Amino acid sequence: MDATDLVDTADLTTAALHGSLEDPALNSMNFLNEVSHHYPDAITLAAGRPCEEFFDLEDLHRYVRTFCSYLGDELGYSAERVRRLVFQYGRTKGIIHELVATNLSLDEGVTVDPESIVVTVGCQEAMFLVARALRADERDVLLAVSPTYVGLTGAARLADLPVVPVATGSAGIDFDDLLARIRQTREAGRRPRALYVMPDFANPSGLSLDVPMRRRLLQVARDEDILLLEDNPYGLFHGEAERLPTLKALDEWRRVVYLGSFAKSVLPGARVGYVVADQRVADASGEIGLLADQLSKIKSMLTLNTPPIAQAVVGGKLLQYNCSLAKANVRERELYARNMNRILDGLAARFPRSANGSGPVTWTVPAGGFFVVVTVPFIVDDALLERSARDYGVLWTPMHHFYDAGTAVRALRLSCSTVTGAQIDAGIERVAALISDRLRAG
Amino acid sequence: MDATDLVDTADLTTAALHGSLEDPALNSMNFLNEVSHHYPDAITLAAGRPCEEFFDLEDLHRYVRTFCSYLGDELGYSAERVRRLVFQYGRTKGIIHELVATNLSLDEGVTVDPESIVVTVGCQEAMFLVARALRADERDVLLAVSPTYVGLTGAARLADLPVVPVATGSAGIDFDDLLARIRQTREAGRRPRALYVMPDFANPSGLSLDVPMRRRLLQVARDEDILLLEDNPYGLFHGEAERLPTLKALDEWRRVVYLGSFAKSVLPGARVGYVVADQRVADASGEIGLLADQLSKIKSMLTLNTPPIAQAVVGGKLLQYNCSLAKANVRERELYARNMNRILDGLAARFPRSANGSGPVTWTVPAGGFFVVVTVPFIVDDALLERSARDYGVLWTPMHHFYDAGTAVRALRLSCSTVTGAQIDAGIERVAALISDRLRAG
Repeated sequence: MDATDLVDTADLTTAALHGSLEDPALNSMNFLNEVSHHYPDAITLAAGRPCEEFFDLEDLHRYVRTFCSYLGDELGYSAERVRRLVFQYGRTKGIIHELVATNLSLDEGVTVDPESIVVTVGCQEAMFLVARALRADERDVLLAVSPTYVGLTGAARLADLPVVPVATGSAGIDFDDLLARIRQTREAGRRPRALYVMPDFANPSGLSLDVPMRRRLLQVARDEDILLLEDNPYGLFHGEAERLPTLKALDEWRRVVYLGSFAKSVLPGARVGYVVADQRVADASGEIGLLADQLSKIKSMLTLNTPPIAQAVVGGKLLQYNCSLAKANVRERELYARNMNRILDGLAARFPRSANGSGPVTWTVPAGGFFVVVTVPFIVDDALLERSARDYGVLWTPMHHFYDAGTAVRALRLSCSTVTGAQIDAGIERVAALISDRLRAG
Repeated sequence: MDATDLVDTADLTTAALHGSLEDPALNSMNFLNEVSHHYPDAITLAAGRPCEEFFDLEDLHRYVRTFCSYLGDELGYSAERVRRLVFQYGRTKGIIHELVATNLSLDEGVTVDPESIVVTVGCQEAMFLVARALRADERDVLLAVSPTYVGLTGAARLADLPVVPVATGSAGIDFDDLLARIRQTREAGRRPRALYVMPDFANPSGLSLDVPMRRRLLQVARDEDILLLEDNPYGLFHGEAERLPTLKALDEWRRVVYLGSFAKSVLPGARVGYVVADQRVADASGEIGLLADQLSKIKSMLTLNTPPIAQAVVGGKLLQYNCSLAKANVRERELYARNMNRILDGLAARFPRSANGSGPVTWTVPAGGFFVVVTVPFIVDDALLERSARDYGVLWTPMHHFYDAGTAVRALRLSCSTVTGAQIDAGIERVAALISDRLRAG
């Protein structure tokens, strides 16, 4: 083959690249981003991003200065040591672990040794670290409450860890299905290692587990010897409802690996998350350490450490609010609750028979979080989303992206996080028009 | 098993975790960090970190402001759009790709489409992305010039991609060994996908490839249908020698995937690197895209995107120096060159017979970079490093960490990057004392 041929043909094929690259999970995000990109004027009830109205560039500078002052004034670091901490390579597990531990105790009632925390490049890296660690060989599988956040599925695929869906049921998790899946998995010679679950205002279902279900889940995890991967990006945005204890707060047997995110509570652009992994791990020599230290070893070969500059931003915001992000997010919580109610009111006004329970269109009524799922009597595919964007000027997320590829799903997800009240009204109007037209078309 | 048992025993064993966690490559970094931690007063000729004397916290703020002004004033972004770019989730391939492309054309003579660049969380993430992409199945292997940077080996292990060492020889790469390894790999039914190489002042060998060797390497890559993974963290620190063209600058056949780092040229604490992957990839439907877009899909499930806050810092420094980091690093280049000469002079003064070529101790004489390798007539293991730290007060890196586990190596690596002239003199004195004592002990 000479140079001319090479110019005209491909250098590689995806068949010779890692299998995840042909996986629908990795293409979902790209597809959804592309649709929004092509229709920039459409109202977006699709994005799960936090609201932007409180963003202030000066905050960045203020947070970094607050964090650096704390290092000098409160921890007594020399100016040289502060500079080194923020500028140089550093501790793999992070530099704000003490502040994160304080935050967990204040906002979540979770008491953990700061050494069991690994600060990560967003919660996404935390998911990959755990998936990579738990995939010892081809027998290992991960269970996940389905519909499942695409980022979890993608991280597992990158680690060659199959994801077995567990039904959500009407209450957040179907325990019969969970136990059946565990049994089937074992009968097939495979090892269920953990169950991924979002107990608070799950993405995408919007559902939450009540306290008895949380306790039962911990008991099942203990009885069946699996871990629970608790993901909690929306817990702070609990509307007017009281917060329920996290699984980690109820965890007496070190069954819960807690995945934390600052994307919604501080800002996405820092890309700072963390994982709490206080499980005790025996190595080949019988020495016992923390799972966090095993995850840290993986991280040292993945990103070395989370940018200390970004950690300084998050650390500064934590310090500014005495480590309570619940306090720091009062405005945001109220805004999301207001928007959520407006979506629910809008749906009820446009589908009055459904609001009575007798119509063909139904929806979830979450107590908090970002997401409402609308169920319709027809299949919601990507073509319908494109039509919605083009002809109706409104974006939402087809729910099939959160299920195994090829599953026909009659539902769509609406998000309340990045829209104004007026946009919600107009957006729901457009969604309702699309649904009505589609219903009429039969 | 009841709760009491669980409290007393481990929850997990490393045998049930991913194999990389028992791999020496992932433990090397931890071991070396621990030694420095235990002996904080020892002079460190071990660290590959950049010098800290030009760190200035105010630079952070200035760089971010410079970047944001550029977005507004030069690109015409609204204030809202600037805030969104820096604070919100964003483009997976990064937001400073245009500036990086300009930098590559100015400093490296490399002309690339900015779309072929993926901005990563340090060069470490770039290595993992490439390793993950190229590992389609168990037949795939990576070749790497040996001794090999531990981070490459670790990233490959995380992707279950075996690394086959290729001898460095005396000139940076042994072509006979390279061709033999490719042949052997193929005969064993495996696929050599790429060769990892640092053509400029390699870590740890300190060696550079001359231009004819670079050209020959490109020809071999083309003839044998493998990629070259060119890692270039030290190219800017070329002492008084003229810079040679990178492999990527000479690459006419899209054989080179270029791994870039800003850790040494801007600052490590931003954790910003990048990969240039302009290879054309055909997908299952025959559509052709860039390898960069495949790497981006992996990144979207690993870290989503590189913290835009950190990219803003790097972007601001690039802008401040009109995108030339060669210009921005004149002071650093001179400092490293001065330190390197001082190490070489110190060795020559303490081992005069070796400097004449007749003694038992030899060392490399790199034209730039951070590292000198000293070869001695005895095995250099971790126990010797511990003794050196404890009894002689000096740290360096045993070269065996850069070879396959169990390889007995008679060499140690000295770094010139984070020490003062006086520390170098004292450090070399101590290293020389250790070596002399060890030689006398026989």
